[in-house]
Amino acid sequence: MTEKKEKKTTTKEKNTDDVIFVGQKPPMAYVLAVVTQFNSNGSKVITIKARGRSISTAVDTAEITNAKIKEIKIGTETVTNEEGRDKNISSIEISLTNS
Amino acid sequence: MTEKKEKKTTTKEKNTDDVIFVGQKPPMAYVLAVVTQFNSNGSKVITIKARGRSISTAVDTAEITNAKIKEIKIGTETVTNEEGRDKNISSIEISLTNS
Repeated sequence: MTEKKEKKTTTKEKNTDDVIFVGQKPPMAYVLAVVTQFNSNGSKVITIKARGRSISTAVDTAEITNAKIKEIKIGTETVTNEEGRDKNISSIEISLTNS
Repeated sequence: MTEKKEKKTTTKEKNTDDVIFVGQKPPMAYVLAVVTQFNSNGSKVITIKARGRSISTAVDTAEITNAKIKEIKIGTETVTNEEGRDKNISSIEISLTNS
C-alpha cells in the first residue's frame, strides 16, 4: 500500500470503506467485485447495497463471498418514478470484513 | 394472557417467540400477520423468515410494520429439488420487537 490509487475513489472515504451497488446481474458478478476489492484494493470493509428485488441478490452475494458479516441494516428509500409519483422501496446494506 | 392458546403453537417456544414464514404473497399479507401476532397473541418478539426471492418481501414486511428491528441474520440453506440435486439458497431472519 505504498502506491497511492487516486483513479476512481476521489471524494470517498479512501479505499478502506468501499460500496458495491447490487443490481440485476447474476450474484457472481458482484461476488467477483467484492473479492477484487478485498484483494486488489486492500479494502477492509466493503458495503453491499441493494434496493427492491435486488435485495435477495445482495444476500446471495454476501453468502457466496463467505466473508465475515459485520453489520446488516435495512431501510426504506423514496424513489420518484416516471409518472412523478413517490414510491417507497426497501433497501439493504450488508457490511463485510476481510477476516 | 390468562387464556391458554394451544391450537397452533404446540411444541414451539410458547407465544413469546413467534415465527412468520414469508413466501410469495404480497407484503401486506405478512404485515397483517405480524400486527395480529403482536396485538392479539401478545408476542414480544416476532421473527420473519424468508428464502430466495422472498427475501425482499421479508424486508418490505419489516419496513412496513415499522416495528423495532432487534436482529437481522442471513444464512444459506441447502434445498433438494425435484431432480434430487442439492441447491444452496440464501435465507434471512429478521427479529422484530413490539416497542
